[in-house]
Amino acid sequence: MRTVKAGLVGLGTVGSGVVKILDRHSADFRHRAGVDVRITRFVDRNEQRAVDLGLPMGSFSTDLASIIDDPEIDVVIELVGGTGFARTVVLDALRAGKSVVTANKALMATYGHEVMETAEEHGVDIMFEASVGGGIPIIAPLKRSLASNEIQSVIGIVNGTTNYMLTRMAEDGLDYDAALLEAQERGFAEADPTADVDGLDAAAKIAILASIAFNSRVTFSEVPAEGIRSISPNDIAYASGMGYAIKLIAIARRTAEGIDVRVHPAMIRNEHPLAKVNGVYNAIYVIGDSVGETMFFGEGAGSLPAASAVVGDLIEVVRHIDGDCLGIIGCTCNEHLPVRDISELVTEYYVRLIVRDEPGVLGAVAGIFGENGVSLGSVIQKRTDAEGDAEIVWVTHRASESDVRAALAAIEAFEAVHEVGSVIRVEDLS
Amino acid sequence: MRTVKAGLVGLGTVGSGVVKILDRHSADFRHRAGVDVRITRFVDRNEQRAVDLGLPMGSFSTDLASIIDDPEIDVVIELVGGTGFARTVVLDALRAGKSVVTANKALMATYGHEVMETAEEHGVDIMFEASVGGGIPIIAPLKRSLASNEIQSVIGIVNGTTNYMLTRMAEDGLDYDAALLEAQERGFAEADPTADVDGLDAAAKIAILASIAFNSRVTFSEVPAEGIRSISPNDIAYASGMGYAIKLIAIARRTAEGIDVRVHPAMIRNEHPLAKVNGVYNAIYVIGDSVGETMFFGEGAGSLPAASAVVGDLIEVVRHIDGDCLGIIGCTCNEHLPVRDISELVTEYYVRLIVRDEPGVLGAVAGIFGENGVSLGSVIQKRTDAEGDAEIVWVTHRASESDVRAALAAIEAFEAVHEVGSVIRVEDLS
Repeated sequence: MRTVKAGLVGLGTVGSGVVKILDRHSADFRHRAGVDVRITRFVDRNEQRAVDLGLPMGSFSTDLASIIDDPEIDVVIELVGGTGFARTVVLDALRAGKSVVTANKALMATYGHEVMETAEEHGVDIMFEASVGGGIPIIAPLKRSLASNEIQSVIGIVNGTTNYMLTRMAEDGLDYDAALLEAQERGFAEADPTADVDGLDAAAKIAILASIAFNSRVTFSEVPAEGIRSISPNDIAYASGMGYAIKLIAIARRTAEGIDVRVHPAMIRNEHPLAKVNGVYNAIYVIGDSVGETMFFGEGAGSLPAASAVVGDLIEVVRHIDGDCLGIIGCTCNEHLPVRDISELVTEYYVRLIVRDEPGVLGAVAGIFGENGVSLGSVIQKRTDAEGDAEIVWVTHRASESDVRAALAAIEAFEAVHEVGSVIRVEDLS
Repeated sequence: MRTVKAGLVGLGTVGSGVVKILDRHSADFRHRAGVDVRITRFVDRNEQRAVDLGLPMGSFSTDLASIIDDPEIDVVIELVGGTGFARTVVLDALRAGKSVVTANKALMATYGHEVMETAEEHGVDIMFEASVGGGIPIIAPLKRSLASNEIQSVIGIVNGTTNYMLTRMAEDGLDYDAALLEAQERGFAEADPTADVDGLDAAAKIAILASIAFNSRVTFSEVPAEGIRSISPNDIAYASGMGYAIKLIAIARRTAEGIDVRVHPAMIRNEHPLAKVNGVYNAIYVIGDSVGETMFFGEGAGSLPAASAVVGDLIEVVRHIDGDCLGIIGCTCNEHLPVRDISELVTEYYVRLIVRDEPGVLGAVAGIFGENGVSLGSVIQKRTDAEGDAEIVWVTHRASESDVRAALAAIEAFEAVHEVGSVIRVEDLS
């Protein structure tokens, strides 16, 4: 059994989890998996983190070169995050002939092509299981066990922060601000929650999943993302009354016209397995032409779950080093499928409007939908607390996104309409 | 790209699915996964099956030697099932230096040690993803992505037949016989349903999962199995009233005294993800020390789902052949943990009795529980339709299996007790 040496860059939340797992289980890995791996060098810009983790100071440096230039190191673990220094870490390591394990969704969703190509050129592994779904095995199953399938769709609840917030709003009627505050207090949301609540984190993750599922590169910038800021407890209550849950979903579908990929809140039937995924949990629901429906569920964030995926990848790389078959699974984006514009989407829409409570407004709004080719399924009108205001909730029949957008523009311009409260797509996930 | 040739033994349900997938996607596998694999020889004892599948007759034989003796064949797919001829197929193939892909739970749960050892001796792959959970990726994730964890427990709904029956009993009040008949009519149950309804199928599967999860060999014969024959719609209704679902679960836990492994119906809290797995679906719930809770959900049976797993394994073997690293993941049963006797189990028990409806019986039965050290949590007594009969449902506090068994033996002998209707363990799965 060969001892494989690794270097770790980034001693934050996930990095400290990796250190803990190896402290706890290195001997088990030798005994149980036949894999001997040691992290011999650590790099972070903050020396205090190394002190706090009790690392031997001789193994620590603030200089990336200490890892890149060490010929004994065969694997670099990049846990810096982002697309700046992290990109340098990953590319420098690959170019130095070292395999890379990363948890970096932003890097893989934006520079995935460059990273995969560099790994291939240098005949090494690039592994990124932790970039999506924390500890949930999803990237390896898609690349391996499910490789026998033509994947039809991948639909994920891949952001724990927003799923926690929506769960609290659904279960206890909290409004958005209260749910966010609670998530921040419990450490589930950052002080600046933008990446989570605006769907950007989920967009990076679905770009990665879509690329693997459809063997065709999808990048972060190609994924239209809407977040949950406009979702109110009223929306959740209306949805519930109609048999739906509201979830922030990241969706990627194979269609005849290309890849349909997007992130937004959606109403999904209560019976669907994804509707039952609550709290900080993540789940990725996959439909393949042979396997049918599958779902992968677990903790999507946190130090140890993400570190579980990182160390799982590390063990796999060490097996490849031992077996002399690095690069055995490289880039599989061998197709060039177009990404469909969201304006081509056809689905049902839930629309909540705040209008002046007077005769004729409901009919006038219905008329605007009709003029724009949007046919209506059901409508609920309620007087609200605000004086003279009424809330109208419409659910359309299947309509095109562009028609609905045109109708909403006209409705917003109509002076009896005070506010378009929310627009939520109703997704048929079957 | 090297063309790898495979031989397929067994042209039944799963075998025909494998043929279909390769017909449909061989070109995709070359293009997308860089894997070129062809099945060049087929063996079955029934030639008609080859005719029905439209196989070229020159590639078909009823003689296993046609595959074993063909030096061009590098992989043998065994889809015969059982532990007789299938064992010969697998061992002969491995000894001839061919890798093996199998869906055979009985073989792996009984002769896994022999099979794994033979594969290792000959430096080839043995893959068996389809043996548990149909198309759901679970064996590869346990061996690879989750290898970083010390697994605490693996709890599965791994038999679709019984889960379908219990779901129909819960949702529409069908009794056991009606549910079985319906399952048979819909093709979800065999004419002889013994292996499914008595928990034997699930026992083989949990033996395999436990062996991988705990790195220690657990065989079929070591798994105590109880089936669902005694479950009545009443049990399900009582359970539901207490906030529980009744599921046939296959459970394997790491304990300080060894591996706790068993199959039986259990009451599990409605909030638990497994409680929501209905119909023919399977799910495997895994707790690891780093990853926390995860669950793998999907179709546990059927031609194409199982074939999805078989072909996924086949692609993986071809990658290993291409990369010259066969045997890279071999047997990981390097521990020798004892299997705990079920008499040592401590949990809560639900007990339904049919008794003579007269004063003092309830108190007398309670007395018997007490004499045997079993303390009682709650009791419900109802008059039944049968004249002079009453039904009493007890839920005990945590008690040892051996104490409960002793109490039940005494209760059964008590002349006022007509029948011990059912005994269901209440499982705290957290």
